[in-house]
Amino acid sequence: MNAEEIALETRAMTGTDFVREAVRAMSAYTLEPRVARDKLDQNEGAFDLPGDLKSEIVQRVLGRRWNVYPDFEALELREAIARRAGLTRENVLVGNGSNELLMIAMATLVAPGRRVVIPTPTFPLYEKLAVIFGGEVVRVEVDPRTGLLPLRAMLSAAAGGGEPALVVACSPNNPTGGVLAPGDLDALLASGAFVLLDRAYGEFWDDGAPAPSDRLVTLSTFSKAWGLAGLRIGWLESTPELCGEMRKVKLPYNLNVFSQEAALVALENEPLMRARVEETLRERARVISRLASMRDLEIFPSRANFVAFRVAGDADALFAGLAERGVLIRNVSRYPGMSRCLRVSIGTTEQNQRFLDAIADALAGGSDRSAR
Amino acid sequence: MNAEEIALETRAMTGTDFVREAVRAMSAYTLEPRVARDKLDQNEGAFDLPGDLKSEIVQRVLGRRWNVYPDFEALELREAIARRAGLTRENVLVGNGSNELLMIAMATLVAPGRRVVIPTPTFPLYEKLAVIFGGEVVRVEVDPRTGLLPLRAMLSAAAGGGEPALVVACSPNNPTGGVLAPGDLDALLASGAFVLLDRAYGEFWDDGAPAPSDRLVTLSTFSKAWGLAGLRIGWLESTPELCGEMRKVKLPYNLNVFSQEAALVALENEPLMRARVEETLRERARVISRLASMRDLEIFPSRANFVAFRVAGDADALFAGLAERGVLIRNVSRYPGMSRCLRVSIGTTEQNQRFLDAIADALAGGSDRSAR
Repeated sequence: MNAEEIALETRAMTGTDFVREAVRAMSAYTLEPRVARDKLDQNEGAFDLPGDLKSEIVQRVLGRRWNVYPDFEALELREAIARRAGLTRENVLVGNGSNELLMIAMATLVAPGRRVVIPTPTFPLYEKLAVIFGGEVVRVEVDPRTGLLPLRAMLSAAAGGGEPALVVACSPNNPTGGVLAPGDLDALLASGAFVLLDRAYGEFWDDGAPAPSDRLVTLSTFSKAWGLAGLRIGWLESTPELCGEMRKVKLPYNLNVFSQEAALVALENEPLMRARVEETLRERARVISRLASMRDLEIFPSRANFVAFRVAGDADALFAGLAERGVLIRNVSRYPGMSRCLRVSIGTTEQNQRFLDAIADALAGGSDRSAR
Repeated sequence: MNAEEIALETRAMTGTDFVREAVRAMSAYTLEPRVARDKLDQNEGAFDLPGDLKSEIVQRVLGRRWNVYPDFEALELREAIARRAGLTRENVLVGNGSNELLMIAMATLVAPGRRVVIPTPTFPLYEKLAVIFGGEVVRVEVDPRTGLLPLRAMLSAAAGGGEPALVVACSPNNPTGGVLAPGDLDALLASGAFVLLDRAYGEFWDDGAPAPSDRLVTLSTFSKAWGLAGLRIGWLESTPELCGEMRKVKLPYNLNVFSQEAALVALENEPLMRARVEETLRERARVISRLASMRDLEIFPSRANFVAFRVAGDADALFAGLAERGVLIRNVSRYPGMSRCLRVSIGTTEQNQRFLDAIADALAGGSDRSAR
């Protein structure tokens, strides 16, 4: 049999014909690159690590051999994370950002056809990954004005269907800022649902560190309150049994030596993170108070390091007017249920002040491209 | 409806019951942690970056804000990689090790039920990911004595079946060391098959840098010849169209700032990598020549920075005897078709000499636990 004969037996497929239908149907998660003096569009923590901590991390990294694979199991970092939560390292996985762990959790928990309940609007990656793994996505509407995720609607959507649903809850929720109220997680678990709780903004809202449950997986990240977005480090907590299953899906050596050292040093300096969270919460109160005093803005309650608000006028024009003034925020007006809405991350005092001045100016018609 | 009523409607499932069947059936990719003076078990490049290059990378990293996400598109690194190959950045994706890109390629190209032809033994992650994404794995036997991948058997396995198969070719192949002969890749592509070519060891074997084809995806890594295993950096080359599809599956911000800077500095110093490859090839020839002179070892041809060989006696005992002598190599005797086989990475001259002395001693019966 030669190559030509073989070719005759099979239907010719080239290039993207060969790509899985589910992938071809997807749109890419893109972000238009924009340069701005004040970057308040991605909910990153406002504060870089102090120079002495950076130096300490770098010294540790320089003392290692870079040509050798990192610790296969990231034992030291998993221990340090587990200790904070009163768990063992068998309760913890670490990854290249919590995005990677989200993918691992979805690959493990989303069987084809399984219902995945997603309060929407939320972080778009949940739905994308649920689709990739063949889940049947059930969207539940989030009303950003309530400051809460819709427990009763989530319970209803999760119910029925022969086997339990996977409920995804981002609390505090991006981009609305609302949370699961105290007791809501217990209610979801008691209903028989399996819960994937994304605590990416959890340091800004004391949710009482939920205890491990055999129907619960939580995700956390060093990219927000910990101020290490550039290093891509996340972690996951669950029971040892479920962590064992997810470890099968995890790629080996998924966290590089630099990120492991940085996370360890950050954890050794947790009071610094706590102080910065306090500063962010004070600034959030100030930003909300100033925005609330502006005409034609509806501010949504937020428990995270960002604030979403609805514009009476043209949100696209206000977004552009802010960008003209050097302040980049996030235009979330195309998210479901978020028409005419924008989202701003809480930055440093100086950044927040420039944002507040810029939005006041833009709303007052300080430029032809402003909102009013 | 309250939580109790909902619970009655659905079958109770807790813990690992909820895990996808395909995942539950998998075994974990584990590696027993072992400490040894000479670590020749993972085919890492033998040479760390010189201190001045490490310092340059660290200085660049210290000049950046760590609390900000890395470049979403890794534009500068993709440009630098593309330029080497005469391509554009639209032909290139970068990732957290080539493992991540392998997963992305599999998620994009392995539709449920699609045949995935895998010459075996090889890197176990191909089969694991093919199974996760629902592919039907067709193993083809690799004879390590030939120094080649079995083209005709691969063509036969790929033929028929209504639609083209995905053929995975690791060339040079881990752990056997064999390669696709010149022209074999063209024959596979001409057959109508789709080819995933893993060039992880490609710098050690001049495969002529295959031109992009709309049925070809290649994977490369900075973890072997480039000596950056600890930083987890890989890249993928294909057509802009296929890269566009795979970008949909890729997680955002998958490469941290440190790894991006390190890869850029490594590429700026490519002659250093080339010189180290030459040194590794000289050492490989020396190691093979010495091993070939030892009784009861069958050495397999290798085009990579490792050598596999079959032991006439007890491979487990020889492996243990080497470990006792401070030299950790890889026991691959449980891989299909590799009974009584071990694999040693080519290290520095000093490491290789200690390996050669240790194996000579162990084979000569220098300890109760040695092989003979």
